[in-house]
Amino acid sequence: MKMKQFTIPTNIEEKMIEWRRDFHRHPEVGWTEFRTASIIADTLVKLGFEISVGKEVVSSNRMGLPSELDLENAYQYALENGGIETYMESMKGGFTGVVAKIVGQEEGPTIAFRVDIDALPIMESTKDEHIPQQLAFRSIKDGEMHACGHDGHASIGLALATVLSQNREHIRGTIKIIFQPAEEGVRGAKSMVDAGVLQGVDYFLALHVGTGVPLGTVIAGTNGFLATTKIDAQFTGKAAHAGAEPEQGKNALLAAAQAILGLHSIARHSAGASRVNVGQCIAGEGRNIVPSSALLKLEVRGENDETHDYMYQQAINILNGAAAMYDVELSYDIMGAAKTCSSSDQLNEIIEKAALDIENVNTVHRLTSFAAGSEDATFMMSAVQEQGGLSTYSVFGTTLAAGHHHEQFDIDEKVMKIALDTWLSTIQQIYLEERSNE
Amino acid sequence: MKMKQFTIPTNIEEKMIEWRRDFHRHPEVGWTEFRTASIIADTLVKLGFEISVGKEVVSSNRMGLPSELDLENAYQYALENGGIETYMESMKGGFTGVVAKIVGQEEGPTIAFRVDIDALPIMESTKDEHIPQQLAFRSIKDGEMHACGHDGHASIGLALATVLSQNREHIRGTIKIIFQPAEEGVRGAKSMVDAGVLQGVDYFLALHVGTGVPLGTVIAGTNGFLATTKIDAQFTGKAAHAGAEPEQGKNALLAAAQAILGLHSIARHSAGASRVNVGQCIAGEGRNIVPSSALLKLEVRGENDETHDYMYQQAINILNGAAAMYDVELSYDIMGAAKTCSSSDQLNEIIEKAALDIENVNTVHRLTSFAAGSEDATFMMSAVQEQGGLSTYSVFGTTLAAGHHHEQFDIDEKVMKIALDTWLSTIQQIYLEERSNE
Amino acid sequence: MKMKQFTIPTNIEEKMIEWRRDFHRHPEVGWTEFRTASIIADTLVKLGFEISVGKEVVSSNRMGLPSELDLENAYQYALENGGIETYMESMKGGFTGVVAKIVGQEEGPTIAFRVDIDALPIMESTKDEHIPQQLAFRSIKDGEMHACGHDGHASIGLALATVLSQNREHIRGTIKIIFQPAEEGVRGAKSMVDAGVLQGVDYFLALHVGTGVPLGTVIAGTNGFLATTKIDAQFTGKAAHAGAEPEQGKNALLAAAQAILGLHSIARHSAGASRVNVGQCIAGEGRNIVPSSALLKLEVRGENDETHDYMYQQAINILNGAAAMYDVELSYDIMGAAKTCSSSDQLNEIIEKAALDIENVNTVHRLTSFAAGSEDATFMMSAVQEQGGLSTYSVFGTTLAAGHHHEQFDIDEKVMKIALDTWLSTIQQIYLEERSNE
Amino acid sequence: MKMKQFTIPTNIEEKMIEWRRDFHRHPEVGWTEFRTASIIADTLVKLGFEISVGKEVVSSNRMGLPSELDLENAYQYALENGGIETYMESMKGGFTGVVAKIVGQEEGPTIAFRVDIDALPIMESTKDEHIPQQLAFRSIKDGEMHACGHDGHASIGLALATVLSQNREHIRGTIKIIFQPAEEGVRGAKSMVDAGVLQGVDYFLALHVGTGVPLGTVIAGTNGFLATTKIDAQFTGKAAHAGAEPEQGKNALLAAAQAILGLHSIARHSAGASRVNVGQCIAGEGRNIVPSSALLKLEVRGENDETHDYMYQQAINILNGAAAMYDVELSYDIMGAAKTCSSSDQLNEIIEKAALDIENVNTVHRLTSFAAGSEDATFMMSAVQEQGGLSTYSVFGTTLAAGHHHEQFDIDEKVMKIALDTWLSTIQQIYLEERSNE
Repeated sequence: MKMKQFTIPTNIEEKMIEWRRDFHRHPEVGWTEFRTASIIADTLVKLGFEISVGKEVVSSNRMGLPSELDLENAYQYALENGGIETYMESMKGGFTGVVAKIVGQEEGPTIAFRVDIDALPIMESTKDEHIPQQLAFRSIKDGEMHACGHDGHASIGLALATVLSQNREHIRGTIKIIFQPAEEGVRGAKSMVDAGVLQGVDYFLALHVGTGVPLGTVIAGTNGFLATTKIDAQFTGKAAHAGAEPEQGKNALLAAAQAILGLHSIARHSAGASRVNVGQCIAGEGRNIVPSSALLKLEVRGENDETHDYMYQQAINILNGAAAMYDVELSYDIMGAAKTCSSSDQLNEIIEKAALDIENVNTVHRLTSFAAGSEDATFMMSAVQEQGGLSTYSVFGTTLAAGHHHEQFDIDEKVMKIALDTWLSTIQQIYLEERSNE
Repeated sequence: MKMKQFTIPTNIEEKMIEWRRDFHRHPEVGWTEFRTASIIADTLVKLGFEISVGKEVVSSNRMGLPSELDLENAYQYALENGGIETYMESMKGGFTGVVAKIVGQEEGPTIAFRVDIDALPIMESTKDEHIPQQLAFRSIKDGEMHACGHDGHASIGLALATVLSQNREHIRGTIKIIFQPAEEGVRGAKSMVDAGVLQGVDYFLALHVGTGVPLGTVIAGTNGFLATTKIDAQFTGKAAHAGAEPEQGKNALLAAAQAILGLHSIARHSAGASRVNVGQCIAGEGRNIVPSSALLKLEVRGENDETHDYMYQQAINILNGAAAMYDVELSYDIMGAAKTCSSSDQLNEIIEKAALDIENVNTVHRLTSFAAGSEDATFMMSAVQEQGGLSTYSVFGTTLAAGHHHEQFDIDEKVMKIALDTWLSTIQQIYLEERSNE
Repeated sequence: MKMKQFTIPTNIEEKMIEWRRDFHRHPEVGWTEFRTASIIADTLVKLGFEISVGKEVVSSNRMGLPSELDLENAYQYALENGGIETYMESMKGGFTGVVAKIVGQEEGPTIAFRVDIDALPIMESTKDEHIPQQLAFRSIKDGEMHACGHDGHASIGLALATVLSQNREHIRGTIKIIFQPAEEGVRGAKSMVDAGVLQGVDYFLALHVGTGVPLGTVIAGTNGFLATTKIDAQFTGKAAHAGAEPEQGKNALLAAAQAILGLHSIARHSAGASRVNVGQCIAGEGRNIVPSSALLKLEVRGENDETHDYMYQQAINILNGAAAMYDVELSYDIMGAAKTCSSSDQLNEIIEKAALDIENVNTVHRLTSFAAGSEDATFMMSAVQEQGGLSTYSVFGTTLAAGHHHEQFDIDEKVMKIALDTWLSTIQQIYLEERSNE
Repeated sequence: MKMKQFTIPTNIEEKMIEWRRDFHRHPEVGWTEFRTASIIADTLVKLGFEISVGKEVVSSNRMGLPSELDLENAYQYALENGGIETYMESMKGGFTGVVAKIVGQEEGPTIAFRVDIDALPIMESTKDEHIPQQLAFRSIKDGEMHACGHDGHASIGLALATVLSQNREHIRGTIKIIFQPAEEGVRGAKSMVDAGVLQGVDYFLALHVGTGVPLGTVIAGTNGFLATTKIDAQFTGKAAHAGAEPEQGKNALLAAAQAILGLHSIARHSAGASRVNVGQCIAGEGRNIVPSSALLKLEVRGENDETHDYMYQQAINILNGAAAMYDVELSYDIMGAAKTCSSSDQLNEIIEKAALDIENVNTVHRLTSFAAGSEDATFMMSAVQEQGGLSTYSVFGTTLAAGHHHEQFDIDEKVMKIALDTWLSTIQQIYLEERSNE
């Protein structure tokens, strides 16, 4: 028995491009997506969705939050650049998540789709060959850019909402669309899980466009994300004149140097791949002053919980010990975190079936292993799997003008329709499987 | 035989305060003293001095020069805040030294006085108890401040010029007044020596106010400055994604960490005190990127040439070796340098005699040892001594509101008149000694 | 067509136990197996084998050779403890390999078996529960012990020779039995390959007993050994009195400390597992002397050539750079090396078939992955595969009294007969396959 | 009033040479001076002295004690090589100090002389030009040697006793001669102070021969010894196979490497010279084992208590912190200690006067500063000064065949008579001063 297909508005692709280019012009980095999220909220409400925003969907315990000043400035900037105050108010202070919900007339499963909406702190290219420059949708915000495709993700989410709003009679159970802030730095997902957004979800789907996969290829499920924790470690000592009384200082930079070497010397683990990186060090007040402060921005990763937790514990030991060596204070904050990813094979198979018939799709892989990056949708995937649901992370290939996080990054927008169609078809395939299981 | 005393204008103290407070309101950090130097030049010309400015007195080979952009911005700022374009033009690009010369009617020695004129990158206090705030001469330039007394030094130099211009008939030989830029960071003196400013000088006098010495105390000569070299070391490696392909990176921060520990581990020297400090480290592009760059701002010091040169050579070895460990590139610039100081005892004695009769002076020391700082007038002292002249570095005590380089630093302005009188009296004492030697 | 089975002497198990216990009593560490190898040579000659010994089978370019004094002392000790001078003479200086060759009457393949014969520098247990102690075959040489089972390996080799010598009429082509010195530290195999011992070999079989596999289990082929290089790095600086003139020293220990941290900080490689270990550091002459020497014993490993070669190259950079930091000399020697291992599947299958019918064998695995150790038979395996032959590394399980390299290590001697039978059966299976391929 | 001179036996120089050469042939390192001390005790008793030995004069709390096995072996060796059992028994376990006391018939001050008696772990030269080799008094104990002149010191002590025993009628008050073990490594003096040996002493004299001062020169008093603490730091982690399960290890060598760098990076102190040296590192079990142990032999020094105590405290922080970084255990022992030295000027003057008339003395300095070594007589000097007495450390120059601690070290024995005469004359000079003060 084949189910009736959803009716799709003829202008949906045009709409997706319009949204995507608008978001692209107005990038907002993690926890400052006031304009983006408020426009999403407004659009959803106009489509007839029940929405939750702000603290309803984002817990206060957020990782990697910008300074209050930065949050406030971003808020003002959003206000002046098209943000919708009605919705922005509840997002003040960085609660920039939105969840849309639509309930069908028949009983059925709860299916959740998650798209991420934040941009990166990258200055976008002004080269002529760069399409957003040519077509005048280059970022107007100096130093911020959608260089990872989240503008497209957000648009896919809105397109999905649009189609569903026009096909209410075909919906069973509940469908949620989760617009997540602050994926970059793996910061936002955990806060939405903590706020309960994933409770009751039976099927969970997240996606990414690009990632080196060619246009026309769909990867139903991916594994292999590395679990990770992002740490800001601050050593605080005591300044002193380095010529006149060096012994009066407590040298935070020496502690940091020992820590840097110590962190990178953590032994390999036989249970799987691990990583450590001290990506940044900012230390000291002046050449002739014993440095009283040193900030390290670091991360550890592991192929599985065992290796990740080992790396994390060793790192904390190293940091504490290094501080003790020079009698300086250590404080540290968790700035982001993600888990490993194990896409549910049963759901991968459903998506694989759904994708096979989609227009412009020529290759479908059920499962591949994603090399060595991290992704915080894994927190959501894990939450759903822990409550007995299925979850997976799909990749929709597209032609890239330059690699992710590059100043000339750009996608072939055709991927958005492929992703939309695959997700819509997956809904129907889920209903089919559920019925056949009855 | 006692010589006729110089006639001193009655308002000279008032003038010094006026100049000092004007300079204090308009601080300019090293190599950007466009306003200060141009006003000095203008004043000197009006007093009838023959002056040399710009490349005539500052060689192109300057240490620790700001970026071209910073120089240009400072130039514009000076233009808009009272700088005198006639003289500023020849200072473009940071040639902000001025030398005044006056030749007497009789034969005689060449005596040179050196004052430094630059400010510090410190935000001045706005507290009510801070006198410059109370009396409205606090710095109007955010983040720059005369927190070391060079505003007073410059004023003493101008007052000396004023008195001499009115006492031409008492001058024998030649008197030079050297207004030196960029003493902070020990950058400017060597360039003036290289430009030949000290050629032919028989007696050289430099001074500092404050330094913990009480008002009323004069130290004729000081020894004990540490020879020093200031180095900016830049490690350049190769960025790579720390999760996906860490082996592709060349880690500049690991090289820097090894270097930091290595530098601080240079063995003590049995021939005298030594110092090393890595005061700042700025490294890396992002948490998840193998750091491709690391900048260390460091300095070495030694009680004498042997220990200084040893520290310097070891430091260079350490830096090169650390770069080699991680196959990263090293480049380094000398950002400043100073020598040790050995005040000429014969000149100390002359100044001691001169100071004993000065009003408000209650204590005179012929020679003390200055603890563990560095000062680039030492380049000038050394140049003069090498050509057979005498040189010394005097300290004029004054009450300080807070220590040097502190945001509430302030001097008791009475010290300026003491210094002026002592220098004038020293000129006469020199003439006396010269005559008695004939 | 089933081939005629080899006739096996009834006392062969008794003989194996006798040999094994004699070797166990007289352990000899790598390159000093004068007694062991000369007894093997003598036995083989008496069995009618053509043998090659000394420089014929071991190239001069040996890794990890003991000192001349140690070699000489070991030689004398062997002479006094049952070594056979006739054969020992050609082994002088550590050329302690033996290769036996027997040529059949019919044409056929060349099959080579390799057993290793060296002991470990471990003091054997004197506890009552330790069987060698109970049965009086504990090592009589203080500080040396067969704690890895090579005494059993050597005995299997001799038993194989014994059977073959009595079944000459069933041999086709050529059979070689390679008795290799210095497997511990992965030192000896490469020298035998360099001497040409593997030339013309079509089938190569190596084995190990134990390794955690239970008695009765045979693993036909193993993969997963890590490629490795063992390095002794010697830093040589200059001593100086640490109180009186520390600056005169060149501190080899500081260089070593930087190197230790540097080596352990080599970045993980995304292409596979890697390892690094500085296992020993011996440095310095006395507490109050700047250390003029520091010896590091280290190793790098990689899951494949790419990761191994990367680790090796980084390590050499680190060592050189660390020496440069402190202006000390670096010299290093390669003390051992091994390759990764890829057992030939076709040969694994042959052994699997051969093992299935062997008495006391209850489980046969065709291929498993060996965890994270290294083995220098891999040099031989690789040499044979490069010339188009097949090679594999088998494991014969046995009950262990304690883990390998433990002072109470002991094997269940029953494994020797299982290994002998499997190898004899494998010869017949090879003949069978060769015939069926004709 | 000039006092009657002591009568000196004509053969005293011959005796000193005999004793010295006997001690030289039989060197005994610190805490194992069983033969030396028992012969001294026996000689003193025969001279009629009241002696104290063993635990009477050496507290149990000794620094840098050899292992029990080494003590026992040395004891046996001494027994077999001329040690006198009667006295050795009370020295068992390393209580190898002797104090001789003689009380005069008149009231008077208590004067103490201290000589040290231990040898060094150095293999003595066998070169023909080496006098002890030529004259057959080279050390017969492999690896131990009197390479610092303590054989001469002990002989001077015995000669002093000999003269005093024959001049009892000229002695006033009390004279003590302290024969101290374990000066090398600055270990023994504190234990004798703790045992109360210095109680009641009014004048304390210690000496050294050689030290670069020419024969015929006497230095009455020296200052400038560096205060020092000698530390053995043991890191204990957990071994693991570096290939198979590196994460199971706790790497003591990485902790040690961080500590080595950390210790040498302790900031210079502005209050005076400081030193730090990690002179030895012995770590690890094998190349392929994560090192579970690392021993560092280190020392800190300071020109004064402030700098010494600062260095010591920083060192302990560094060691503890480094252990914490790698979660390994730290234990440390104080292996030796000495204080700074401030010779009493009043006593220097007395010795200066006494030395001026001595035969073969051509130059006398009242006070010089000793460069950068350490000496544990400082504990005794300090103890005497604290109870109101005077103490000084004299140097008697002599021609050296090679520097101290060199395998060809040898003294010109003439110095012994100079020292003896000076000390005898000093006793008389003290009596003279005491009388004149009455």
